[in-house]
Amino acid sequence: MAKVLAINAGSSTLKWQLLAMPEEQVIASGLVDRLNLPGSIFKVKLANGEKFSETQDNITNKLAAAMVLTRLKSYGILTHLSEITGVGHRIVAGGEVFKDSAVITPTVLAQIKALKDYAPLHNPVQAYYIEVFTQLLPRARQVAVFDTSLYAQMPAVNYLYSVPYEYYEKFGARKYGAHGTSHRYVAARTAEILGRPLTDLKLITLHLGSGSSITAFDHGRALDTSMGFTPLAGVMMGTRSGDIDASLVAFLAEKLHKSMPEMITILNHKSGLLGISELSPDQRDLEQTQGERPKSKLALEMFVNRVVRYVGSYIAELGGVDALVFTAGSGENGIEMRQAIADELAYFGIAIDPAKNDFRGQERLISPDDGRVKVLVVPTNEELMIARDVERLTQS
Amino acid sequence: MAKVLAINAGSSTLKWQLLAMPEEQVIASGLVDRLNLPGSIFKVKLANGEKFSETQDNITNKLAAAMVLTRLKSYGILTHLSEITGVGHRIVAGGEVFKDSAVITPTVLAQIKALKDYAPLHNPVQAYYIEVFTQLLPRARQVAVFDTSLYAQMPAVNYLYSVPYEYYEKFGARKYGAHGTSHRYVAARTAEILGRPLTDLKLITLHLGSGSSITAFDHGRALDTSMGFTPLAGVMMGTRSGDIDASLVAFLAEKLHKSMPEMITILNHKSGLLGISELSPDQRDLEQTQGERPKSKLALEMFVNRVVRYVGSYIAELGGVDALVFTAGSGENGIEMRQAIADELAYFGIAIDPAKNDFRGQERLISPDDGRVKVLVVPTNEELMIARDVERLTQS
Repeated sequence: MAKVLAINAGSSTLKWQLLAMPEEQVIASGLVDRLNLPGSIFKVKLANGEKFSETQDNITNKLAAAMVLTRLKSYGILTHLSEITGVGHRIVAGGEVFKDSAVITPTVLAQIKALKDYAPLHNPVQAYYIEVFTQLLPRARQVAVFDTSLYAQMPAVNYLYSVPYEYYEKFGARKYGAHGTSHRYVAARTAEILGRPLTDLKLITLHLGSGSSITAFDHGRALDTSMGFTPLAGVMMGTRSGDIDASLVAFLAEKLHKSMPEMITILNHKSGLLGISELSPDQRDLEQTQGERPKSKLALEMFVNRVVRYVGSYIAELGGVDALVFTAGSGENGIEMRQAIADELAYFGIAIDPAKNDFRGQERLISPDDGRVKVLVVPTNEELMIARDVERLTQS
Repeated sequence: MAKVLAINAGSSTLKWQLLAMPEEQVIASGLVDRLNLPGSIFKVKLANGEKFSETQDNITNKLAAAMVLTRLKSYGILTHLSEITGVGHRIVAGGEVFKDSAVITPTVLAQIKALKDYAPLHNPVQAYYIEVFTQLLPRARQVAVFDTSLYAQMPAVNYLYSVPYEYYEKFGARKYGAHGTSHRYVAARTAEILGRPLTDLKLITLHLGSGSSITAFDHGRALDTSMGFTPLAGVMMGTRSGDIDASLVAFLAEKLHKSMPEMITILNHKSGLLGISELSPDQRDLEQTQGERPKSKLALEMFVNRVVRYVGSYIAELGGVDALVFTAGSGENGIEMRQAIADELAYFGIAIDPAKNDFRGQERLISPDDGRVKVLVVPTNEELMIARDVERLTQS
C-alpha cells in the first residue's frame, strides 16, 4: 500500500487528504483555514471518524505543511514520513504548457511560477507548497495536477476568443477552463457506471457549486467548457456574474466611478445569485425564501436558465448527448434545481424520475428507466483524481 | 395611396426610402454618405431604375434632409411635399420605455433624447432628424421605430444580467437587443410563407451581416436575443468580438496599456472575423482565401460555431423550433455558410437541401420537403417594416 497526499491549496486555506493507493481509501483529511491571520484553524478527520481541531494565530503556509505531517505522526497515522510515496498538488493555471498532469521537475516548477499571470492568487502559493513538501518529504514524488489541462487540447475554434489573433500569440488570450479535475473525475466515473468506455460517449458534466462550470466531453476529449480565460465567465454562480456584455462593464465602471479591476472584483464577489437575490449566494437560502422573496425566486430561475442555455449549446456542438451528469455542492444536493433543469430540457429527451431524484450527495442514476439521455448524480472527488494521477505518473 | 418616408440615420449616413402604402412599393431610395465631411455623397435611385449622384463638401444633417425632399420634387417624384403623409424614423435605443413603435410627441422626442446614454452615436442624431423633418413636413405624422422595442418585453430571466440587482434599477443594466426591426420583419414574413400565425410558431431568426444577432421567437414574442446591453455581445461579427470573458478584457487592457473605452473600441472595430482572419471582416473575402489562409478558414469556422451555439441554446429555451430563418447580408448571400450552420445542427432535424440553397438574396424555403424544421431565407426589409409601423400607428 502506498500513501499519497493530495494537496489543494487556496490563497488562505490548505485542504489535504491522505489516501491509500491503489485501494483509493481516505486515511485522513484536513483543512487549515485563516492562514497567516489571527485565529488560524487546523482541523483533521481520521478514517475512524476521530476529529482533531487546533487554533493558533498566524499559521504560515510553511508551518501548515509541517503541522500536517507532524500531526499525522502524533495521531499514529504515520510511523515514518517516508511512508508517503507521492504528493499531488492541485495547480489552478497550467496554461497551454500542461496538457496533462506532470511530475515536478525544476523546469515544471519554474513553468508553474511563470504562469502566475493567469492565477495570481493561486499559482505562487501552490508553487510554494511544492517547494515546502519537497523539502519535508524528499523521497516522495511530487506531481502537479492542473485545473486546466483537460481543456488545453480543445479545438482552436472553441478555445479562441474573437479578438485580434495576436492577443492569443502574445498574451495567451484564450479559454483555459477550470474545475478540470472535477470534470475528469465525474466523466470517468460516469463511463464506469454506464459500463461503456468514455471514448464512446457524448457527455455534459455540470459542476454546480459556489463556482459553476459545464463541460462538453466528445468521446473522452473536452470539446468545450463554460469557464473562460478566468473562472468569471460562463454560467451564473454564487457570487460571479458569468457571461456579461463587456460594454456593460465599461458603462457601469463609468457610472459607478470604479476602475476596471474594481469592476472585476464586483463581478466576482458581489454578483451572481447574491447580486440578483440581494440575500445570499447559497441556493439553499434562496430555495427556503423563494416563497416570500421574488428576488430569491428570480435568482434561482436565472441560474437554471443559464445552465439550460449552456446545455443546449453543448448538445448542438456535440450533435447529441448520451448522459448529463450533476456534481459539486448544488449538483449533488440541489434536488429542486436538478428537476428544474431537466424539466427545461425535456425537448432533448432529458428527464429525471422524481422518486429517484429525491436524495442528496450520493452516486445515482436519476433518469427514468426508458430515458433516452441518462442523467446521473456523481459526487465529485478531486482529491482522489489527484491521487490517481500521482499513481499513474509515478508508477513505471 | 399614401407616401411614407422611412429614415434610417447613422452617425455619418442618412439612408432613406419613399414607399407607397399600403401597396408597399418603393418609389425612391437613397443614401447620403460622409455627412459633415469633405466629399459628402448624395445618391438616389428611382423605381424605374434611374440613378442620380451628387458630391458636395460638408453636407450637414439638416441639409441632407432638405436635399432629399427638394430632389424628390426636382426628379418629378413629388409634386407637393404634402404628399408625404408619414415619416418613420429608425431609433437605435428605446430603453424600457418603448415596447412598441410610437407616434412622435414632444414627450416621446424628449424620451428619445434622454436615452442617449444607451446609443450615444445614434439617438441624438436620430432625434435631430425628427426635429428637422417635423419642420420640413409639418403635416406628416412622424413615428419612431425602435431597434429595441421587440425586446423590451422579454422575460426578466432573459433580459437581466447576473450583476447586483440595483444596477438594473439605477442604471438600466439589462439586455436591450438590437436589429429588432429586421427580426420583426422576417418573423412576420416567415409566418406568411409558412401559412401559419406567428403566434403558433417557435422561430429562430438569424440576422447575419456585418453586425449579427439571433432572436428566439416564442409564439410571436421575443424570448431571447444574442445582442446584449449593447450590440457588442452575442455571436462573433465582422469586426465585433461578441461574447467574451470580461476578465480577459481587463487583463488585455493592462497588457496593452489601454483604457477600458479603448478596449471596447478594439472589441467593436478590430475583432470578430477581422481580428481572427487578420484579413477582412467580410465573409466573402474569407471564403475566397480559406484555401490558402488557415486564419481565414478558422475565422469562418468560429463564426459558424458561435451561431450554432446560440441556436442550440435557443432550441433549449424554446423547447424546440419550427423554423430557422436566415437574413441580412451573409444570411441572404452566404450559401456555404448557411450549409455549414445547418450541417452542424443536423441532430435537431435541421437540414438544407443543397440544390434549394444555391442562390443569393431571394426569399426561399431551403429545407428538404420532409424537413422536420423549416429553414428559410427571407431578405430583410427594415424600411418596409418602418413604413408599416407608420401606417399601423397613424391610421385610425
